[in-house]
Amino acid sequence: MTTAPNRPHHVVIVGAGFGGLEAAFGLAGAPVKITLVDRRNHHLFQPLLYQVATASLATSEIAWPIRYLLRDRPDVTTLFANVSGIDAAAKRVLVDDGDALPYDTLVLATGARHAYFGHDEWEPFAPGLKTLEDATTLRRRILVAFERAERETDPARRAALLTFVIIGAGPTGVELAGTIADLAKDTLPKDFRNIDTSKARVVLIEAGPRVLAGFPDDLSAYAQKSLEGLGVEVVLGKPVTECSIDGVVYGGNRLEARTIIWAAGVRASRAAEWLGAPADRAYRVQVNPDLTVPGHPDIFAVGDTATISDTSGNPVPGIAPAAKQQGRYVAALIKARLNGGTLPPFRYKHAGSLAQIGKRKAVIDFGWLKLRGTIAWWIWGIAHIYFLIGLRHRLSVAMSWLWIHARNQRAARLITQGSSKVTG
Amino acid sequence: MTTAPNRPHHVVIVGAGFGGLEAAFGLAGAPVKITLVDRRNHHLFQPLLYQVATASLATSEIAWPIRYLLRDRPDVTTLFANVSGIDAAAKRVLVDDGDALPYDTLVLATGARHAYFGHDEWEPFAPGLKTLEDATTLRRRILVAFERAERETDPARRAALLTFVIIGAGPTGVELAGTIADLAKDTLPKDFRNIDTSKARVVLIEAGPRVLAGFPDDLSAYAQKSLEGLGVEVVLGKPVTECSIDGVVYGGNRLEARTIIWAAGVRASRAAEWLGAPADRAYRVQVNPDLTVPGHPDIFAVGDTATISDTSGNPVPGIAPAAKQQGRYVAALIKARLNGGTLPPFRYKHAGSLAQIGKRKAVIDFGWLKLRGTIAWWIWGIAHIYFLIGLRHRLSVAMSWLWIHARNQRAARLITQGSSKVTG
Repeated sequence: MTTAPNRPHHVVIVGAGFGGLEAAFGLAGAPVKITLVDRRNHHLFQPLLYQVATASLATSEIAWPIRYLLRDRPDVTTLFANVSGIDAAAKRVLVDDGDALPYDTLVLATGARHAYFGHDEWEPFAPGLKTLEDATTLRRRILVAFERAERETDPARRAALLTFVIIGAGPTGVELAGTIADLAKDTLPKDFRNIDTSKARVVLIEAGPRVLAGFPDDLSAYAQKSLEGLGVEVVLGKPVTECSIDGVVYGGNRLEARTIIWAAGVRASRAAEWLGAPADRAYRVQVNPDLTVPGHPDIFAVGDTATISDTSGNPVPGIAPAAKQQGRYVAALIKARLNGGTLPPFRYKHAGSLAQIGKRKAVIDFGWLKLRGTIAWWIWGIAHIYFLIGLRHRLSVAMSWLWIHARNQRAARLITQGSSKVTG
Repeated sequence: MTTAPNRPHHVVIVGAGFGGLEAAFGLAGAPVKITLVDRRNHHLFQPLLYQVATASLATSEIAWPIRYLLRDRPDVTTLFANVSGIDAAAKRVLVDDGDALPYDTLVLATGARHAYFGHDEWEPFAPGLKTLEDATTLRRRILVAFERAERETDPARRAALLTFVIIGAGPTGVELAGTIADLAKDTLPKDFRNIDTSKARVVLIEAGPRVLAGFPDDLSAYAQKSLEGLGVEVVLGKPVTECSIDGVVYGGNRLEARTIIWAAGVRASRAAEWLGAPADRAYRVQVNPDLTVPGHPDIFAVGDTATISDTSGNPVPGIAPAAKQQGRYVAALIKARLNGGTLPPFRYKHAGSLAQIGKRKAVIDFGWLKLRGTIAWWIWGIAHIYFLIGLRHRLSVAMSWLWIHARNQRAARLITQGSSKVTG
């Protein structure tokens, strides 16, 4: 392990998501200097992002200033900047304003964006959900659709405004569909005069044969039944072949809808491209068993930026606990290397899979135990509150959920960003 | 009072701020049909807007969906639309999509925007504070200034980034200056590595001879001393003669500053122009003693849209309690007219003036009692929590304030809107 002479070993971490932040936390006390670079000033709790999109939570309830999280770590410098590339030969991270940041060890934790698999032209009609801005944009689209329906007199146009299509029935798609159904059926009905919001159609379209494909068959079946109980129309085995301003086409059927949400796939950030590293079709770096990038023993990739298999040969899932485990592993390996040692390969431990279905149910697969219904919902809720950082956020989210359950009141029903334009 | 035959008397209220909302509340039970039009979907608690701009409160803590506030009032239809004019001859409100809304009685409560008194070209450099978007834009500018200073190596440019100028020392200017000083001196210092945020300059510039001109002399003097105690530089008697990307010029002095905030004046919305009504220099309609627009007995103007004198000949101030009293009066007068009666002229009752100075002090002028310091701050805080609508918002704001006081932690330090561009 090389370090330039006369200065401490410099670890640069790009991205302050779950993986990058955990790597910084794990390096506490190590004889290193750390620079954490992110193009946003906040760490985002992505598992609850769909609740911002559906007006259940406020943006500040699931985001923390990165600097604040590391205020007691003088060894960490946080840099609010956009990385534009890596000069691996010179061991420098290139920043968009022309700066170059020398590193001894580099950790790439740059995450993923949603991907349209060759149909990028669908993005304006079917936005995805990865950032706070994505969430407030979706929230605006959903709320504006109801507002415009209230003023629309043409029955066909009104029906299209009250049709919400979610493409992709993984956890995000299922959670969005359930929560939009709750919003339309529980929260909004008394607020409108000309439309019956409870008649809004929520259509969940999945190309594969079942919802929540990562879960056991019986939990998938339960999730589907529960969604249908909430009024969600579940369409399986039909890939979407067209998205436009008018709606979607799937399996030869045309559905008029003014709100379409993309939850069907992601692609990693440009880290593999920066390095010319081997990548899978979602552009994730195919990392070595110790999470280094092939050919670059001093560069690690973690979380959604990387792909690796677990001990049974299945790919490690792109979820927060996996990214955190990888961040912790990388921190431990850097510390071991500085002492002249090494570590056995990374091993992923799957704690469980969770998904919320509407506001009172969930499914949980712990492997050794499968749970569903209200009990699963309680565990889901407590687990998510536990994983939030700090008492302030925990109290705030708990209070927001209490109000949703007790009063059907969603505090964050704000149309912002371009709200002066009514047509949204 | 005329009503078209065969349908209930139709009251159209334009604007769901304090005045418009109070008029709608006051008409409960009256034999009327009400349409409340706003181009935003939320009612905003403007007295605390500066706390959103300074990352102390989240947007959803001071805003409520208008529909939600009127969900139990089937007599009220809320319309999310932009009013473009009034056809007083045909008694119709014109909406931007070409719709026209017939009214029997019209209440104009369209509020005000900040005004630059002939220097509209200053707006890009010195934004004001009237909407949630204004507040998140200001929040972004303030937080990005610190971020850019952290990366800036040129001393002069860094100093300009760490200089915050507030123009206008009324309550909003005083509150902004004190809170930015707190932010720089209490909340941020431990978060940065290259800059000492506590050395940031906060400069409050006022053309008049004292801060808080609407308050008694001794409270003005106390407010100035308190601000100076927080490190705010107070400049009096010097009008600003130039705002640009580089800073401001006042009284012949040039001050390099990258963040300038305009708190020096407002102008009313275009209501007077729509009607060709007599207006003052801030475009407020000079209403009759019963708040009707001269020449239009069936059109009322209230709040920041109107100007009227109190019993001592002083203009009624443009504050929330005044707008609410006017909204209530108009509702009562409409009800009286429907019964064939009328009411004596509107009389403004001034309950008091309040301003917060930094996070632990305030000044209050009740007329019969003047308060300052910590005791005034407690009354200020309790009064503001009391005036928020609903337990949910009260608890949430109380909790945010508790965290600011106990932990110097401001929950809403989020750079959003264009956050991918670091240069903000």
